Amino acid sequence: MGKKIVVIGGSAAGPKAAAKARRMDESAEITLIQKSPYLSMASCGYPYYVGGFFDNRNMLLCTPTGVVRDPKFYLNTKKIDARIQTEALSIDRIGKKVRVKNLKTGEEENISYDSLVIATGALPIIPAVPGRELKGISTLQNMEDADFLRTIRDEKKISKAVVIGGGLIGIEASEALRLAGIETAIVERMPQLLGFLDLEMAKLVENYVRNKGVTVHTSNGLEAFEGENGHVTGVRLANGEILPCSLVVVAVGVRPNSALAKEAGLEIGSTGGIVVDHYMGTSDPNIFAAGDCVEIEQIITRKKIHAPYGDLANLEGRVAGENAVIGKTATFSGSIQTGICKIFDYAAGTTGLNERSARQNGFNDIETVINASPDKPGFMSGKPLISKLVIERKTGKILGAQCIGLGDVSKQIVLWATAIKGNLTVEDMVNADLPYAPPFSLALDHGIATAHLMQNKMKGRLKGISATMVKEKLDSTNPPFLLDVRDADEFEAMRLGVGEKLIPLNLLRARLNEIPVDKEIICYCKISLRGYEAALILEGNGWKNVQVMEGGVLAWPFPREK
Amino acid sequence: MGKKIVVIGGSAAGPKAAAKARRMDESAEITLIQKSPYLSMASCGYPYYVGGFFDNRNMLLCTPTGVVRDPKFYLNTKKIDARIQTEALSIDRIGKKVRVKNLKTGEEENISYDSLVIATGALPIIPAVPGRELKGISTLQNMEDADFLRTIRDEKKISKAVVIGGGLIGIEASEALRLAGIETAIVERMPQLLGFLDLEMAKLVENYVRNKGVTVHTSNGLEAFEGENGHVTGVRLANGEILPCSLVVVAVGVRPNSALAKEAGLEIGSTGGIVVDHYMGTSDPNIFAAGDCVEIEQIITRKKIHAPYGDLANLEGRVAGENAVIGKTATFSGSIQTGICKIFDYAAGTTGLNERSARQNGFNDIETVINASPDKPGFMSGKPLISKLVIERKTGKILGAQCIGLGDVSKQIVLWATAIKGNLTVEDMVNADLPYAPPFSLALDHGIATAHLMQNKMKGRLKGISATMVKEKLDSTNPPFLLDVRDADEFEAMRLGVGEKLIPLNLLRARLNEIPVDKEIICYCKISLRGYEAALILEGNGWKNVQVMEGGVLAWPFPREK
Repeated sequence: MGKKIVVIGGSAAGPKAAAKARRMDESAEITLIQKSPYLSMASCGYPYYVGGFFDNRNMLLCTPTGVVRDPKFYLNTKKIDARIQTEALSIDRIGKKVRVKNLKTGEEENISYDSLVIATGALPIIPAVPGRELKGISTLQNMEDADFLRTIRDEKKISKAVVIGGGLIGIEASEALRLAGIETAIVERMPQLLGFLDLEMAKLVENYVRNKGVTVHTSNGLEAFEGENGHVTGVRLANGEILPCSLVVVAVGVRPNSALAKEAGLEIGSTGGIVVDHYMGTSDPNIFAAGDCVEIEQIITRKKIHAPYGDLANLEGRVAGENAVIGKTATFSGSIQTGICKIFDYAAGTTGLNERSARQNGFNDIETVINASPDKPGFMSGKPLISKLVIERKTGKILGAQCIGLGDVSKQIVLWATAIKGNLTVEDMVNADLPYAPPFSLALDHGIATAHLMQNKMKGRLKGISATMVKEKLDSTNPPFLLDVRDADEFEAMRLGVGEKLIPLNLLRARLNEIPVDKEIICYCKISLRGYEAALILEGNGWKNVQVMEGGVLAWPFPREK
Repeated sequence: MGKKIVVIGGSAAGPKAAAKARRMDESAEITLIQKSPYLSMASCGYPYYVGGFFDNRNMLLCTPTGVVRDPKFYLNTKKIDARIQTEALSIDRIGKKVRVKNLKTGEEENISYDSLVIATGALPIIPAVPGRELKGISTLQNMEDADFLRTIRDEKKISKAVVIGGGLIGIEASEALRLAGIETAIVERMPQLLGFLDLEMAKLVENYVRNKGVTVHTSNGLEAFEGENGHVTGVRLANGEILPCSLVVVAVGVRPNSALAKEAGLEIGSTGGIVVDHYMGTSDPNIFAAGDCVEIEQIITRKKIHAPYGDLANLEGRVAGENAVIGKTATFSGSIQTGICKIFDYAAGTTGLNERSARQNGFNDIETVINASPDKPGFMSGKPLISKLVIERKTGKILGAQCIGLGDVSKQIVLWATAIKGNLTVEDMVNADLPYAPPFSLALDHGIATAHLMQNKMKGRLKGISATMVKEKLDSTNPPFLLDVRDADEFEAMRLGVGEKLIPLNLLRARLNEIPVDKEIICYCKISLRGYEAALILEGNGWKNVQVMEGGVLAWPFPREK
């Protein structure tokens, strides 16, 4: 008789744990308890189903070869007893059994376990404001939400929607609604979208989102849902403004669904997630937990975090499933908080710490740099990327990287995530040996160029300043002298228009007399490579107070003249 | 008076060194000597110009903002005296001067240096066979070649071409010719294309290249060029076959152009490249060298190699340029031999050692695994990738990775290249935290899945066998029992047809009686994930001699029934 494994939760971590348990032991008796009627849903795919990237709903529920992952599939292919529409009511840790209820029949029963895996996921947070009971308010969290929103797309009856929350899901939801032809606004209480980015990076994303026709309200929270006849008609904001709409998607985050574990007396952490060790073991040696219901270690800060991501859920589930069968052997090492988000043709990604989170976590001796450059040569239709790198100054160790743009963001984030995993430093990355051919990258990849800039900055050669700091200085009583060194035609096509002087780089040495000798000089170009050369020319000719605006015009997040 | 820097060579490493030298010292006197009429050419872009990916020839010669990098540009923007059509004849190391000749006027002069950078590049190898003087035989090495071949594309007069050499440039050239509407054959003396791949990976690429309409002759070298009236009319192969054609592109490799350095008495290595230290310094303390003319260290094997790649040339040039100005401070760490090649919609990439080169370099305790899986979910139009990972068994350390396919190969190679740089092991990569969202990857990225397979193999859970080994066994006197566990419709659409038995995975437990108990069993499916599960089912039910064919049908490089 095989070991009895019970897994509670059938979305991502649960099915992964159950499948891994089966692969570890053909004779184990494995039961999967799932409250929803669906199993192993590709929940990260909901926004793309709603947005019309594909029409076959089954693709969210099936294997790569098109077989729907229903209880029959689990039984025949994996010899797993998958019980859908079945709720786990309580865990009897002493008797080692789970009380479950069949939601269709109302019948209750106990299921015994030798090892239990809890993968109860997370619950969407709905702000406790007036009107939350109105119809037309949805999340984008489960299959029912996806069906509801997809129907709205297909029916074409709704013209205005508001998305509450400008994080990953909020951004994905607003793209999906916009692609459905719906006028869409995003409401975000914080001063920026995508909290995993630093402010100046987020503002560049915000500009892009607005260009795509989505209205963005930042620093402005939800006060109430307005309604008529039981249906939502608008959203009232903190500043009193009312945004009329007949659909609201709430995406202000999720919290660990750890109530069942808590009631069973398992240790719960300060994030609300179930406490687990590196083996995904809970405070009960016979119970493991994985996925959005647990808290895990942030590898860089060593702090506990709630990291509800589908990739981590799978990695954790794999470890929990193995250990549930053969005891604590496999380990999960934690997260460096890597993430990525598609935004129309743009992408925004992050790994490790951004400048804000680094400082919040006590990393004070840090250096940052912003790099803007294409992902590929112009003749291969290269598209721009803007990266921000954060390092520890003393050691040169990579702490984090953010990357946004129309170019290949995903590859950049993989580069830096792996560098962080390998404890690599700026000096290591300066000579990184990456795959180069014109269809894939510049001869010096954007990531290597980012490392070069950082190295130049650390060696005191590049005196970089962020656009945010430049803007502050411009708004001060003693504004600096801003020097744009692009060509005249570039200046005609696009410029800041904040009082800058244009002297193309090739004329700079001949026109040094036009540069004030007693002022702070800030040089830039489109991406600030020429800006850097201009600064070196000025310094080489005696100027003392010269800086380079990092990322140039491309990374300027504020309004421009043109 | 500034330091006198002379740079010989104006293609990639040279201009980079000169530009870096300028950035290091505004007062330096910098002279760039270039034999060709062109400067800082994007030579890796030639195949794409020939192939019609873009029509504006200037894009190969200009800055990202469209300014051609001619002597005027170098003078005004970089204060560099760039002398084109000027040949460096000799180096007087004692007098510290370079003898140069203006190729237009025939005038000769000496140019003094404090520091010299040699970046003379590489020369294409032309096999010493009869007929090499015939017209219609070209390389794809310089701007003149690109112009010649682009004209052929535009004139549409030539219908048949042969490419000699199936390496990176040979593959790129044959794609370009095919896209120009020319019937194209590749001739390769070795048994496979793309020597940086292991045989079974290269055979998959070969199948794809053939499907794209390019004829491939492997294990068959060039014997002679055939001609009439001074023009090439065909190519005679080692086996006597004659391939009629009116154009031949020779791409059998390059050798370091180190004659000038050798004549000056600088140390030359066994590869023919100039010997340099980690500072890119030659055996003369005042002379640096960079780019395709040097030999560098292979970081994993610690052996000297000739690695003529544009990205390395830039990295080396940067180091040489800095050190030429301020003395030996910057270092270049060597190469792990990372590369990538576009092949129509396919890509093939490598980093580190493949199985063959690992064994050749004395790594005997290695393990390999092949993984086939899509880069993204099916609902986001994921495309297949096939990876082969090579590790050191004792330590789990990553030694190398190859990846091919229609999917995002570049990202996979960046992942493994950075893992090698960071000395990471399989265990590290098993829980890699990579950027996941459906538009960019599977929940478990292809690279992570590759690490999982390797971990399963190292733990003895996955008993993998390569398609090549399976083929050998099938051709032996005691062939194994081949078990395809895909669904019937998949089997109908595509199958090996080598005597395999079909039992879909979901029926396997019920049909165990159909599996022989006394034979070696080899399971597989499309990518061999189900194949792996099938093997575990058999083992769980008492079978002892069960293996999984790695990569499944997708990685089968031999002819299939359908």
